[in-house]
Amino acid sequence: MSSNKAVVCPEPGVVEVIDTPFPTFELTDGPGVNPANVGRKVPHGVILRTVATNICGSDQHMVRGRTTAPTGLVLGHEITGEVIEVGRDVEFIKVGDIVSVPFNISCGRCRNCKEQKTGICLNVNPDRPGSAYGYVDMGGWVGGQAEYVLVPYADWNLLRFPDRDQALEKIMDLTMLSDILPTGFHGAVTAGVTVGSTVYVAGAGPVGLAAAASAQLLGAAVVIVGDLNEDRLAQARSFGCEGINVAHGDPADQIEQLLGVREVDAGIDAVGFEARGHGHGAGAAEAPATVLNSLMDLTAAGGSLGIPGLYVTGDPGAADEAAQKGSLSLSLGTGWAKSLSFTTGQCPAMKYNRALMMAILHDRIHIAKAVNAQAILLEDAPRGYAEFDAGAATKYVLNPNGYLNR
Amino acid sequence: MSSNKAVVCPEPGVVEVIDTPFPTFELTDGPGVNPANVGRKVPHGVILRTVATNICGSDQHMVRGRTTAPTGLVLGHEITGEVIEVGRDVEFIKVGDIVSVPFNISCGRCRNCKEQKTGICLNVNPDRPGSAYGYVDMGGWVGGQAEYVLVPYADWNLLRFPDRDQALEKIMDLTMLSDILPTGFHGAVTAGVTVGSTVYVAGAGPVGLAAAASAQLLGAAVVIVGDLNEDRLAQARSFGCEGINVAHGDPADQIEQLLGVREVDAGIDAVGFEARGHGHGAGAAEAPATVLNSLMDLTAAGGSLGIPGLYVTGDPGAADEAAQKGSLSLSLGTGWAKSLSFTTGQCPAMKYNRALMMAILHDRIHIAKAVNAQAILLEDAPRGYAEFDAGAATKYVLNPNGYLNR
Amino acid sequence: MSSNKAVVCPEPGVVEVIDTPFPTFELTDGPGVNPANVGRKVPHGVILRTVATNICGSDQHMVRGRTTAPTGLVLGHEITGEVIEVGRDVEFIKVGDIVSVPFNISCGRCRNCKEQKTGICLNVNPDRPGSAYGYVDMGGWVGGQAEYVLVPYADWNLLRFPDRDQALEKIMDLTMLSDILPTGFHGAVTAGVTVGSTVYVAGAGPVGLAAAASAQLLGAAVVIVGDLNEDRLAQARSFGCEGINVAHGDPADQIEQLLGVREVDAGIDAVGFEARGHGHGAGAAEAPATVLNSLMDLTAAGGSLGIPGLYVTGDPGAADEAAQKGSLSLSLGTGWAKSLSFTTGQCPAMKYNRALMMAILHDRIHIAKAVNAQAILLEDAPRGYAEFDAGAATKYVLNPNGYLNR
Amino acid sequence: MSSNKAVVCPEPGVVEVIDTPFPTFELTDGPGVNPANVGRKVPHGVILRTVATNICGSDQHMVRGRTTAPTGLVLGHEITGEVIEVGRDVEFIKVGDIVSVPFNISCGRCRNCKEQKTGICLNVNPDRPGSAYGYVDMGGWVGGQAEYVLVPYADWNLLRFPDRDQALEKIMDLTMLSDILPTGFHGAVTAGVTVGSTVYVAGAGPVGLAAAASAQLLGAAVVIVGDLNEDRLAQARSFGCEGINVAHGDPADQIEQLLGVREVDAGIDAVGFEARGHGHGAGAAEAPATVLNSLMDLTAAGGSLGIPGLYVTGDPGAADEAAQKGSLSLSLGTGWAKSLSFTTGQCPAMKYNRALMMAILHDRIHIAKAVNAQAILLEDAPRGYAEFDAGAATKYVLNPNGYLNR
Repeated sequence: MSSNKAVVCPEPGVVEVIDTPFPTFELTDGPGVNPANVGRKVPHGVILRTVATNICGSDQHMVRGRTTAPTGLVLGHEITGEVIEVGRDVEFIKVGDIVSVPFNISCGRCRNCKEQKTGICLNVNPDRPGSAYGYVDMGGWVGGQAEYVLVPYADWNLLRFPDRDQALEKIMDLTMLSDILPTGFHGAVTAGVTVGSTVYVAGAGPVGLAAAASAQLLGAAVVIVGDLNEDRLAQARSFGCEGINVAHGDPADQIEQLLGVREVDAGIDAVGFEARGHGHGAGAAEAPATVLNSLMDLTAAGGSLGIPGLYVTGDPGAADEAAQKGSLSLSLGTGWAKSLSFTTGQCPAMKYNRALMMAILHDRIHIAKAVNAQAILLEDAPRGYAEFDAGAATKYVLNPNGYLNR
Repeated sequence: MSSNKAVVCPEPGVVEVIDTPFPTFELTDGPGVNPANVGRKVPHGVILRTVATNICGSDQHMVRGRTTAPTGLVLGHEITGEVIEVGRDVEFIKVGDIVSVPFNISCGRCRNCKEQKTGICLNVNPDRPGSAYGYVDMGGWVGGQAEYVLVPYADWNLLRFPDRDQALEKIMDLTMLSDILPTGFHGAVTAGVTVGSTVYVAGAGPVGLAAAASAQLLGAAVVIVGDLNEDRLAQARSFGCEGINVAHGDPADQIEQLLGVREVDAGIDAVGFEARGHGHGAGAAEAPATVLNSLMDLTAAGGSLGIPGLYVTGDPGAADEAAQKGSLSLSLGTGWAKSLSFTTGQCPAMKYNRALMMAILHDRIHIAKAVNAQAILLEDAPRGYAEFDAGAATKYVLNPNGYLNR
Repeated sequence: MSSNKAVVCPEPGVVEVIDTPFPTFELTDGPGVNPANVGRKVPHGVILRTVATNICGSDQHMVRGRTTAPTGLVLGHEITGEVIEVGRDVEFIKVGDIVSVPFNISCGRCRNCKEQKTGICLNVNPDRPGSAYGYVDMGGWVGGQAEYVLVPYADWNLLRFPDRDQALEKIMDLTMLSDILPTGFHGAVTAGVTVGSTVYVAGAGPVGLAAAASAQLLGAAVVIVGDLNEDRLAQARSFGCEGINVAHGDPADQIEQLLGVREVDAGIDAVGFEARGHGHGAGAAEAPATVLNSLMDLTAAGGSLGIPGLYVTGDPGAADEAAQKGSLSLSLGTGWAKSLSFTTGQCPAMKYNRALMMAILHDRIHIAKAVNAQAILLEDAPRGYAEFDAGAATKYVLNPNGYLNR
Repeated sequence: MSSNKAVVCPEPGVVEVIDTPFPTFELTDGPGVNPANVGRKVPHGVILRTVATNICGSDQHMVRGRTTAPTGLVLGHEITGEVIEVGRDVEFIKVGDIVSVPFNISCGRCRNCKEQKTGICLNVNPDRPGSAYGYVDMGGWVGGQAEYVLVPYADWNLLRFPDRDQALEKIMDLTMLSDILPTGFHGAVTAGVTVGSTVYVAGAGPVGLAAAASAQLLGAAVVIVGDLNEDRLAQARSFGCEGINVAHGDPADQIEQLLGVREVDAGIDAVGFEARGHGHGAGAAEAPATVLNSLMDLTAAGGSLGIPGLYVTGDPGAADEAAQKGSLSLSLGTGWAKSLSFTTGQCPAMKYNRALMMAILHDRIHIAKAVNAQAILLEDAPRGYAEFDAGAATKYVLNPNGYLNR
C-alpha cells in the first residue's frame, strides 16, 4: 500500500498518471495548498481505496488551462470508495463500508454546513468559503483520481451505501452521486422544475444530461436539451428528452415547434463560461454570455434559471479582458422585465445525495445509461480526457482497483 | 365630475398638470395603448376619486427620458382612492370604500395571477406579461396622478381598508401600500432577510428606505443603507439604520467597522440602472453595473440579492451602446464563486399589501415617517418632480381632492 | 335543453336519476342552500354540458347517511364539461371549450383565493369557508352528476384544455383532475413526499391510488399501499406500488420486510373517518382513529402526515358519541415525541390541476389506468354507487352525454 | 474542581442540591442511562463551568411526577457555560469560550442532523430519536443544573458568543437561547406567524411569553396571550401583547373584542398536556385536550397550530386511562373542516439559536425582561422550583458560579 498512482496535469493540455504519496492523516504542502493548512491534522478522516472516480467537465476546464489551477495537483473530485482505514476520531463510518464522497469538502461544524450549504464551508479552505478535492481555488486538497484518497470529516462527509453487494451491482449509477447527479439535480431544483414543468437544459454534456434526468425525476412534463453536438443530443433523446441542435436555428423556434409556445417554465445552464455562440455551427467562437442571455430569452416570465455550469473569476484563456476577469455582458434588462431569478454556485452535493441514492437503488433513475458511463483503467485516464475533450458522448469512469470489472 | 386634472410629461424633462377625460368603463386610444386594447370593455372596473397618489422614482426615470415611455401618458401608479362608481360586474367592492390600488394591473384569472405573480399578468397588456398604470412598456393604462382614475378587475385588484376613519387617519402610511412598501419588502424578502440577518441596502431613496424598514419588520439584526446623498442617509439613520456614504470609501471597509466582518447576509439593490460610481463624490459618472457588482462583493457566500431597482431593456440616454440595450457587464464569476442568488422584477404588490396594511394599522411600521412623506397639491406636482429629482429626502404625495388636509 | 337528468339521494342508501331544472345564472332555493344565497346572480358563470362526472368516496359517505347531507341534493363534484353558454361577465372562457372544474367552488377575489387556498374561499358559502358542488355542509350548490351544470366565477375556476381532440382522447385521465388526482397529490405533497422518499398510503380506494401515483410522480423511491381489500391492493401493485393487506399482520412488520426498517418517511391517510380496525379481517368494526394512530406509528420521526381522507364534524352514524361529534382519541403523545406534522382539509384543486394536466398530456402519469376508471351511463349511476360501496376496485365515471363512447 | 453540586429530584415533589461526580469524557451508568451508552467515549466533548442554567416548565413536569422520569437524574437542560476543558477531538471550540448549549443533544453526523432536525438525532439516544440533558426519555444524559457539565460533539453543538464581555453583559437574555427562546420561536414559526399576522398564544408561562415575543420579532400585527394567571398575563402585557384571562369567558368573545373577528391567523400551544379547563377559575380540573381543541376553534380556516407545549406518551398522574397513555380526545373534524395544520415536537434549537443571538446582541428582542428572568443561587433551586410551580410570573436562572453577580 505504499504506492498510489494518480492523475495529474503537469502542464496545460497534458494529463499523466504518476506515482504519488500514499495518503496520511495530516495535510502536507503541495500544489495550491494554503500554508495555513500545511500540517493540519485529520484524525476525523478515513482513507479510501477508490472504487470509481470519474472525469468531469471541470477537470477539462483545468486541463485546458482555462483556470488558475496550479500545475501538478492530483485531479479528481468524483469519488466512490471502500474504507480501508479510519482516523482516531471517526465514530460511525467503519472499515469495509462502501461510500460516496460529495465533491465538496466540508467540516460539518460551521454555520454554513449547519444550514446544508456544504458548498461554501467556512472551515476547510483558508482562502475562501468552499472546497473540493483536486480543484482550482478550492484549497489544494489532493484529488481522488487515484488508487487511494484521504477524506476528512468522514462521519459527516460520507454517504454509506446500505448494502455492499447491491452497491457494487449498481456502482456505475452510484458513482454519479459524488457530483454530476446532485449537480444536475441542483440545477433543476433551483430552476424551479416541478411536476408538470417544461424545461430547457442548455448543454448535453454529463451535467446537462444529469439535469435532464433529474428534471424527469422531479416530474417535468417535457425536457428539452440543446447542444451543438449530435452525439450528445442522441444521448439526451435516448431517455425521453427532446434534443435540439442550437446550430440549426433559433432555439425559440425549435421550442415552439415542440410546445406551441416559444418559452419554457424553467431554464438550466449546464454549459458555463466556455460557451460558444449559437447558430454558427460546431466551430462557433466562444461567447461566454451566450448561454445565459439565451436562457433569459427562452424562459417564461416568472421563471428561474438554475446555473450549475461553472463561471470563474479568472480565465486566462478567455477571448477578451472582461471575460478573463469573469465579467460577462448580460441582458439584465430582459431578465428584469420578465421577473426572472438566478441561482449560481457549486451544488451542495450532501443536500441531495441520500435522496438520489434511494432513487437509484429503487430503480427510479438510470443515470449511468443516461450519461453513457464507461469504465476505463486508471492508466487510460489520458485517453479518457482526450476523448471527452473531443466531444465524446461518454462519461468516463476510472477503475483504479478493479471493482468495476464484475 | 366631467373634468379630470392629471399629471403628464409632454416632453422629456417637463411635467405638467392638464385636463384629461373623465374615466369611463371602456379603454380608448392614447399614448402607449396597444390597438388590441382599444375599445376593451371594463365592466369589472371601478372609478376612484383619488385620495393620495405618490411620485415614484420610476416616474423620474420616464420624465428624464431614460426610458422609451410615450409622451403624453398620464403618469402615476401609486394610487389610493375612494370608490365613487362601480362597474356592472363588481360584486364585493362598494361605493364609499377607501382602497389601495396595487401598481401592477392584473386580471385575477390567468395562470400567473393564480400563482400570486400579479406583476406578470398575462391578460392585461397585449405586448408582454405585466402591466401598470401610467408606466412605460406596461400597456398604456391611464395613470393615477389625477383627480379620478379607472381601476379594472376591481374585486380582484383592490385592497379595502377595514375602517374609513382609521384609514384616513393613517393615510400617509397606507398610501405607501400601492408600491414602495411592498416593493421594498419584496426586495428584502427576495434577499433572504429574516430574523437576525445583517442587511445592506444600496440606495436611500424611498424604495431603499422602504426596504430598510421592511428588513427591520422582518427581524433583521442590523440594516445598513448606502448612498451618496447625506440627507437621504440621515433619513435612514432616523429610524435605526446605519447609513454609510459610499463616496467616503469602500463600503466593505465601512461595513467592517460596523459588523466586524466585510460582508452582510443579504443585499438589496434599490438603485437600478441609473446607478452612479462609488467613491467619486456626488457627481460621479453613471456606471449601470456598479451597484450589482458591489452587492456581489458585499454579500456573503450563500446570500441572496433582491433587486427591486429597475433595469430596462431600452435606455436611450445610457452612456454606451450596451447599456442602451440593457446589457450590463456583471462579475458573474464572483457571484458564482460565492453561490449567490438573484431575484429581479416588478414586485407583485398584492402578494404583500394586506400583511403590510395590518402592520401599519397596528403600529408595527411607520413608513410615512421613514420616507419623510409630504403631501402637496396636485398642481404642485411639477415642483415635487423637480425637488425629488434634485435629491430631496422626501416622498411626495399628491393630494388632488383634499383628503390629506385633515 | 329544457330537461336535465341528475343523480340524487332521496333517502339514505338510495340513489336515483331524476329530472331536475336546467341550470340558470341565478341561484334558487334547494336542499342545503343558505337563504343568503337564494336569488344570488351568477353572471360570471357558465353552463356546461357534462363530458364526464365521477362517483367519489365522499358521495358514498353522504349516501350511506354518515353525514348531515340534506336529502334531495343533486350529487357530484367531479366534473369535466363542454361550455355551452357563458354568462354576461365571462371574458376568457369561450363556448366550445373543454374544461375541468375544480371540485371546490371559489370566488377568485377573497384573501384565501389570492393565497391559493381555494378550498376555503370566503365568499361562496355563507355558512363557513369552503364550498363544493353537491356536497354536505358546502353551501348547497347543485351537483354535477347531471347532463348540465352551472359553474360560477368561470374565468377563475375553469381549467381549459389546450386542444379539444387531445382532451377527448385522454378524457378518462383528465376527468380525474376535478378531484381525486389533485386530492391524492395534495396528500402526497403535504406528507412531504419528495425525490427518494419512502411512502405509506393508508387506503387503496381511488384517492389512495391517486396519492400513490402522485408520490411516484414526485419521485418517491418506494410507495407502499395498505388496505383490507385484495382487489384494490392488486390495483396498487399494477403500477409499481407495494401492496400490503393490513388484515394479515402488523403493517410495521410488513414494511420492515420491504424496507428493512419499520417506518416510512411520509404517511398519507386516504381513508378518513369511516376507518375500520386493522388486523381483524374485512369485517372489522369501525375505529375512526385507527388510521391516524397507525400512521403516527408507521411514520418516522420528523415526518409529516398528509390527511386528504375526510373527517367530519357530524357523523350521525358513528359508533359512539365522541365520534358522532367528530372527536377522535388520538395518540398525540406518540406524534409529539416523534416531532410529526399533520395537514388536514379539502385539497385546493386549482393549486395543482394545471401541473397535473401537463403531466397527463405528456404521458407522465396514467391515472385512469391506476384507478381502473370505467365509464358507465348516467342511468347506471345507482349500480355504480352500489358496486363501489361493495368494494369494487373501480373508479366509476358517468357519461351523461355520450362523449366517452369514442 | 473535584466536586460538582447539582440539582436532583430524589422523589416526586422533592428537589435537592447534592454533590455529584465531576464530568469526564466517558459516559457512566446512572438514572435513565441505556446500557448501550455506558462506557461510551466522548473525546468530542467539552466540560463547561456553568454560567447560567434555567429552571424550565418541563423540569416541573418531571418533578411533579407527571412523567416517567427516573429518580435521581441530575436535572437541567437550559445551559450556558464557559469552556474549561476540551476533548481530544475538539477542533474549533476553545477553552475560555462563552457558549450556549442547545437543549437537544445531537451528533452532527446523522441524516436528521444534516437536515437541521437536531431534536431527533439518531445517534445519541439508543432508545429512540432525540435526546436532551437531564430529561425524561431522552437518553439519561446528565443535566446541567450544576456547577459543571459535559457537552458532547462540542464543535457541532455549541454556539460561541462572539465577544466575552458583551456576552456577560447580556447574559440574562442570552441564557434563553438554550431552550425557551428557540422553543417559543419554533412555535411561532410553525404556527405560520409572519408579518401582519394575528396570533393567539395559549399559556403565559416562559415558553408562551417567548413565543409571544418571537411573534413580535417575526412581524406579527397583534399578539394575544391567554392564561388563567393574572401575574403572567401582566407580564405579557408589559411588552405590548394583549392578555386575556380565559377564566373570564370564551376566548373567542375576547378575541372578537380586540380584533373584530373571532379567530386569529395563527395559534400556538404553549401549555401542553397538563392543561386545565377554561372558564372555571384557577382551580379548574385538568383537561389535557382543552388547549388544542380551543386552538382549533380560535384559529381561522387555513391556519396552522404550532405546538411547542409538551405532550407525553406516558403520564402516570393523568386523570384517566387514555390520558395516562398520551391519548387525547381531539375534535379533528373541526380541524379538518378548517384545513388546519399542526406541528408538534421538541424544537431543534440549533436551527434558530444563531439568528436569535444576533437579535439579542443587536437589541431587537429583550427576552429576559419579557419573561421576568431572575437570577438565584444554585442552592436556592428548591425555592425556585416551588415558586415557579406555584405560578410565579418569573423565569428562574440558577447562578452556580457567580457569573451573574455583575
